[in-house]
This record gives sequence, C-alpha cells and structure tokens, in this order.
Amino acid sequence: MIRVRKFDGSLEAYNRKKIVAFCLRMGASKGEAKAIADRVEGRLYDKIQTKNILQMARRYVARYQPKVRLRRDLRSAISLLRSKPDWELFVQHLMSEIGFEVEGNRILRGKCVENEVDGVLRKNAQTIMLEVKHHAAPHTKTRLDIPREVRSIFEDLTEGFTLGYHDIDFTDALIVCNTKFTTEAKKYADCRGIGRLSWKDPAERGLEVIIEEEKFYPITILREVDKKMKTTLGDNGIIVLKQIIDADLKKLAAKTGIREERLEGLERNARKLLVG
Amino acid sequence: MIRVRKFDGSLEAYNRKKIVAFCLRMGASKGEAKAIADRVEGRLYDKIQTKNILQMARRYVARYQPKVRLRRDLRSAISLLRSKPDWELFVQHLMSEIGFEVEGNRILRGKCVENEVDGVLRKNAQTIMLEVKHHAAPHTKTRLDIPREVRSIFEDLTEGFTLGYHDIDFTDALIVCNTKFTTEAKKYADCRGIGRLSWKDPAERGLEVIIEEEKFYPITILREVDKKMKTTLGDNGIIVLKQIIDADLKKLAAKTGIREERLEGLERNARKLLVG
Repeated sequence: MIRVRKFDGSLEAYNRKKIVAFCLRMGASKGEAKAIADRVEGRLYDKIQTKNILQMARRYVARYQPKVRLRRDLRSAISLLRSKPDWELFVQHLMSEIGFEVEGNRILRGKCVENEVDGVLRKNAQTIMLEVKHHAAPHTKTRLDIPREVRSIFEDLTEGFTLGYHDIDFTDALIVCNTKFTTEAKKYADCRGIGRLSWKDPAERGLEVIIEEEKFYPITILREVDKKMKTTLGDNGIIVLKQIIDADLKKLAAKTGIREERLEGLERNARKLLVG
Repeated sequence: MIRVRKFDGSLEAYNRKKIVAFCLRMGASKGEAKAIADRVEGRLYDKIQTKNILQMARRYVARYQPKVRLRRDLRSAISLLRSKPDWELFVQHLMSEIGFEVEGNRILRGKCVENEVDGVLRKNAQTIMLEVKHHAAPHTKTRLDIPREVRSIFEDLTEGFTLGYHDIDFTDALIVCNTKFTTEAKKYADCRGIGRLSWKDPAERGLEVIIEEEKFYPITILREVDKKMKTTLGDNGIIVLKQIIDADLKKLAAKTGIREERLEGLERNARKLLVG
C-alpha cells in the first residue's frame, strides 16, 4: 500500500479521489482529471509528500488547461491575504455575495466591556455576530481558545443588548477562518451553537467550495501579484479579482501608482481565470 | 517638574513614595529608605527612565544592606521562572502557603469539551478553579482574551458538574499571573466575578506583597542562579528558596549533578536573604 506523508508529518493511505477532486478544482474536466490521476499513480512511491503529489498533478493539469499556469492554488492564495484589512474585507464581501446583508466591523458595548465584532450579518430571522480569523501559514489550525473567546463575546453582547447598551439583537455567532479547526475547537463550537466556515468545513460546503462556486478569487490567486502589488491594491480596497475587472483601470493606476499596462495585463489574466 | 519615563514609554510625574517603597521592599530600613530617596533626588533629570532610577536606588540600598547584591529584584526573578512547570508549581505552592488546600492540575470533562485547569483551590465554602498565566517579559500585560477564555472554561465546567461529568463543584475562578492586566481585562474579570492576583493587583495586597510577606522567593531571586541551574533545579521540583534550605544537599547533588559545594553556597545565600 502506498502511503502519503501529509503536511503535519502524519501518514495516510493514498486516496485517488483526492487527486481527481484537486484536478477538478484546478479547472480540469472529468476525463482529464482521471487521466491525470492515472499518470500521477504511475509515479507514486511510499511516503511521498502530499505537496509533491499536488505539484505533479498541477503540472499535468497545466498541460490540458494552460491558464492554470497563471494561478496559485486557492489555499495559498487566501493565506497570502493580509489579516487586516484584506481578509476581513474579503470575508465581508463573500458573505454579501452569498446573500447576507453585511455591516462592517463595529465596536459594541456589552454587559462588561466594549467588544469588537468583525461584521454583522443578517438573513431572514438571523442576526449573526461575525468573527474573522486568519493564519498566514495555511496549515496552522484554529484552536479551542478562539471559539471560547467568541462564546464570551457573544454572551457579553447579548446581555448588553438586554441591558439596552447597544441595539443589535444577535441570534447567532459565526467564525470564518482560512484554515481548519482542531477537533476540540469544532466540538466546542458545535456544542455551543457557534457556526464555522473554514477550509473544507463544513465538509459538504466549505469555504473553498463557496469561493470556487462564486469564482470569488482573491487577487493573490494570480501568480503575478507579488507582495508589493498585493499591499498596494489591498490598501486601495481591491481584494478580489472581480474588482479588477469592474475597475476603471486609468483611475486605479492614478490612485495606486501601478502602471496602467500592468493593470491591463492583470485584468486580462483575471478574465481568463474567471471566464474559463 | 521632573518627569519619569516608564517602561511602556509614557511619562509621569516623579513620585518620591515609589522610591521609598522600593527601598523598603529591597530590605532597607525606613531611615535608610528616606536617605536613599534624598540621594536619588539629587541626581534626577527630566525624562529619566524608571529603570535607571531603580538601578540607582538599588546601588544605594546595597551600601546599607550588602546582601542586596546577592539578589535580583522580585519582578525579574518571577519572570525568569519557566511557564511550565515552574510557574505553575510556584503558584500552587504559594496558594498552599497562604492557607488554601491545593490540588494540582486536572483535566475535567465539561459540558462540551475536556478542560485543563491549573489547580483546584479550596478554603471554607469556596472551590476555586485556578488559571495560571506567565509572561517571560515582565512588562507584557495580560489581555482581555485570558479572562474571556476563563469565563468559557468556568461555564463549561460548572455545567459539566451539573450534568455529572466530573465531581468538582467550582464556586469561583481565579487567574494568577506574574504581570499586570490591561484595564479592559480587569474590567471584564471584575464584571464576571473572576478573581485576579498579579503584580500590584489587587492594589492593597498584590502578588509581590504576598511573596514578600511569606518570603516565598523563587530560586531565581539569587543572582547566582543562571539559566542552566534554574532548569536543573526546576526539573527536580526545586522552585523556591525555602526548598533549598529544607533539602538534603548531598542527595540533591546526587540527583541533579550540581556540585555539593555549589549547593552549599546557594543555601548560605538563601539563608542570608530569608533570615533578614
């Protein structure tokens, strides 16, 4: 049996489905994905690193779908966003895209202290306290301390509302994070009714599925967006590819100091990824 | 007016009382403390750093009380203890010294998850959940996230008790920390009834007062205890000076590999500090 060494150093049995799913996510057709999985399997060896398998698959996908060369994988792309304000804004925009009415960060007086929330989401009868979390290292898990804190903030704010200290009647809390939660953190959040949206979590429709469905790619998905450009664009509120396509590039060039030709190149590649 | 620059960079008016109190804490008599404050005041200048004033005072105290040369100041000494297990054990011992019945760390099943507590303290009708916190940098403050987490753990454990998941009926929670709390963290803890014991907090009887009253000095108060010796002794459960005096030095030397003569020197200096 071929075993695969994961990012955390642990071993697990090779799973063909994961490769096929990865190729589909990278834009391959079903037939292409299967053919790629066959080719990858011809080159496996025991204890091969996940990273190496994915690089291999990625290279094969690029032969069928050249535009793949333009992009980073989604997981790296979102981990490259800055925690503040990029990731916070990204999540707020994404939530709005999937049908929530979104209010940006607020400082609200709870029973005991002032609490900062990263957003207020509304849909039907729900009013959700949003807590956003970002890890620059995509394999750092969100631990128990985060849902514990959210629980205390939620308590403080709902009691503060009852006391008339602020006017938002929160019904729920939600943590949106770019990385996975630890098992204990999930258990605690489930037990306390705190919602989670993160990498492959919930399993049936995690963050990565929503982003792919909405093609709500961060600008960092383009390989040509380096640290400096990410910062300049982020400082000007440009965080997702769609914004580049919608922008008036002449004005954006004037505002950011990035050459207009470079922005045009960016827009061209953004279109290739989005339209595909 | 002479202003003093504090560790955090802020300025405040020079306060003679603080110098006198410092000298008393270092072992000077009242008369000596006043004389030292006079001498210090002769050498002040605007925006002098707190650190420099204390060094000056310390030097003067050493002229009156030569044993002062043997010791570090208490604040540095406790920050030099390792978070685990030293500081945890130190706090457990200290609590026992001031009349609590102390049980060491436990893992207890709450309503949602297993929670680790750093100790269980009992006195009269109180059963206290102990949370211990340690910062290696003595000026790092303990922030709001800590009491928020403690609040969630306390909730989970009291609900777990009601459900019959464990058998400790906690009535209170207490955070013991070697550094100060932020204003917000204090406000939150007070509001939620979480006890605090830390540097100069509570104001009338903070951690530093209790340690001085009980002469419950950590071994790191002796200047001759370097990193290696601290680690070796700590690994063998020796954390406070009193333990050195009570120990069988021959056996301790055999167990730790520290030369017996060195331990004898340590004991001599420990006695000088403890005996007055």
